[in-house]
Amino acid sequence: MKLICTQDNFKKAIYNTERIVSKQNTLPILNNILFEAKKGFLVLSATNLEMGAQVKVGVKVEKEGKITIPAKIISSFSNNLPQGDNVLIESVEQGIKIKSGSFKAIIKGVSADDFPLIPKKSSEYLLNINSIDLKNILSKEMVSVAQNEARQELTGINLILSQKEIFFASTDSFRLSESRISINKENINKEVFEAYINKKDSIIIPFGTLNEVMRIISNNEECDVKITIESGQIFFEIEETKIVSRLINGKYPEYKHIMPKDYKTRVVLEKSVFQNAVKMANIFASGKSGEISIKIDSGAKKIFIGASSAETGENSTELKFDVSGPSQEVILNSKYLLDGINSISTSKVAFLMNSESTPIALKEINEQTGEVLHDFTYIVMPIKN
Amino acid sequence: MKLICTQDNFKKAIYNTERIVSKQNTLPILNNILFEAKKGFLVLSATNLEMGAQVKVGVKVEKEGKITIPAKIISSFSNNLPQGDNVLIESVEQGIKIKSGSFKAIIKGVSADDFPLIPKKSSEYLLNINSIDLKNILSKEMVSVAQNEARQELTGINLILSQKEIFFASTDSFRLSESRISINKENINKEVFEAYINKKDSIIIPFGTLNEVMRIISNNEECDVKITIESGQIFFEIEETKIVSRLINGKYPEYKHIMPKDYKTRVVLEKSVFQNAVKMANIFASGKSGEISIKIDSGAKKIFIGASSAETGENSTELKFDVSGPSQEVILNSKYLLDGINSISTSKVAFLMNSESTPIALKEINEQTGEVLHDFTYIVMPIKN
Repeated sequence: MKLICTQDNFKKAIYNTERIVSKQNTLPILNNILFEAKKGFLVLSATNLEMGAQVKVGVKVEKEGKITIPAKIISSFSNNLPQGDNVLIESVEQGIKIKSGSFKAIIKGVSADDFPLIPKKSSEYLLNINSIDLKNILSKEMVSVAQNEARQELTGINLILSQKEIFFASTDSFRLSESRISINKENINKEVFEAYINKKDSIIIPFGTLNEVMRIISNNEECDVKITIESGQIFFEIEETKIVSRLINGKYPEYKHIMPKDYKTRVVLEKSVFQNAVKMANIFASGKSGEISIKIDSGAKKIFIGASSAETGENSTELKFDVSGPSQEVILNSKYLLDGINSISTSKVAFLMNSESTPIALKEINEQTGEVLHDFTYIVMPIKN
Repeated sequence: MKLICTQDNFKKAIYNTERIVSKQNTLPILNNILFEAKKGFLVLSATNLEMGAQVKVGVKVEKEGKITIPAKIISSFSNNLPQGDNVLIESVEQGIKIKSGSFKAIIKGVSADDFPLIPKKSSEYLLNINSIDLKNILSKEMVSVAQNEARQELTGINLILSQKEIFFASTDSFRLSESRISINKENINKEVFEAYINKKDSIIIPFGTLNEVMRIISNNEECDVKITIESGQIFFEIEETKIVSRLINGKYPEYKHIMPKDYKTRVVLEKSVFQNAVKMANIFASGKSGEISIKIDSGAKKIFIGASSAETGENSTELKFDVSGPSQEVILNSKYLLDGINSISTSKVAFLMNSESTPIALKEINEQTGEVLHDFTYIVMPIKN
């Protein structure tokens, strides 16, 4: 193997593969990145057997070949390269010789023969989502994913395809985040899509996979992300980077029926003011569940947000805002409420509720018209007194 | 107690006292901040028995009084207050009622009767150092302080007063940082100074105390910091904030004799290029001590910085720079060397050495004249082969 690569391409290829290596020592080769130089391309691959990544960049190949190199060493080397010079890579007896500007190194490697194959998709892509839209959705959905592994199916994000919309949902059974985007001709590959939704319309994608997808699209210019689902696996194509991951087995809970269709009481609040009031109440919130109380006074058009504990004292913040519907009072977990407010991307937030014992909802508000938007819904179950 | 305070004054007073509370539960009152309203001032005090802080701010006192309030609660409350409204504080049966804008709370407190006295100084100040200068010095000196408590005297910074200069020094016995500032009329209170240096000229200030001083001056506008030393204690006055701390008992090592007077070989390097080369070598550095080699070739005016290990491979970075004196080679601990380079505040750094077995030094370079500056010296002991 002998090749010359631009530094930008080299750094990006390393960045997009380096974290998808195994953290376990049972198969040491999985700590490595596979380097393959072939027909004008350098292909880097990494896998932890649950998820794999492959990046293909155009390079000047002087001699074809392949080898695996420890991800930790090559990524440290890449991170410390100052901007500029091209990167020269050449096979040597024990590994590779790598050179860029005044920096040169020999990094020991392992033969590529035992490196596992990264699965390849056989069909065309199914969906096509703009990377900024996908990032926006994932950042909201990752909040409610269960950390506890007791219920495997809740440790991922649920994706539901229908004829008109795609839904993303996550829940740890205390709160739920749901995002939706409309389907149009540009979003889907019609033929594959029709065949697909007749077979299966709901899958669960592991949190770790989406975390890696987020990381890669955040480091990339705006682009289309192509998604394919086949044989219990999901494939993402983010320009020259391909990610493949197993899906989570199991049935995602039928959450739709717990989401209220209508809400009796609606308050529209400034997001930052609401955040501050909840944080302040959290100081005085008692118990592990951090109970805070929200009291809506319809007549006075006021909201009181507060908490009290035997040890620290008590607080109450009085906010004057537009209220419609009857007066209400509810007790909520301050962390869950705050996570929801933080997920809102508009400057105002709608706080919606029916009673002290039914789920409350947060939604976004159209900045121009002031209307409630329905593309994102955050649901929290109240704490019963 | 009843008073009105501007929010800025309130936040600053809390910020400058909140961290100086005890982390131990043996005396619960030491988790609290003492509030005293008297004659147009609110005085906040905190202590952990090793160190104490006191902040005095002008307020409108409507009723005098005092009480202690948990630091954790009052600082969370203060941090979450949005900018603006004044803060109203009033005693209530169990503690204080506090109100600012739409936020109000009752925070439970404990009687002030059992709160320990914060020691007061009896003499005039000894030194007067500009806060920016002091911050600059402390940020360099805190790097080499011993983390290990085996030798108590190395866990602080040594301060030595002489007729012409003040020296600050720290060492963990592997490397040493020394800063000096000249004494002029503005720096010292002559009478106190003369009396002082006849008695004692070397003290050891605990790291934790200087860490707190750093934090307070970093959050403050440029000002003079007045320092007094008496009865085994050191007093700092940073505008309205007073810090008092015990000194560390023991004799600081006589480090001056290990500092070379002259150096045979001198290289002047770009700080950022040097940093990069050391970081790169660190990837390949072997063993716990992270050994890297620095080879100076006088004839070719080149420096080679590299490392090698049996597991990972080897590297070498070739830098072309101005060298004076004979060729040299030395093996250093990469972390200690990097800490030293990071401490340099000029864009160029002098690397000075005599032999492979004597201490190497880093010094700053005057940006205009290119001369080596002697106000800061960082010394590292080489690793012997």
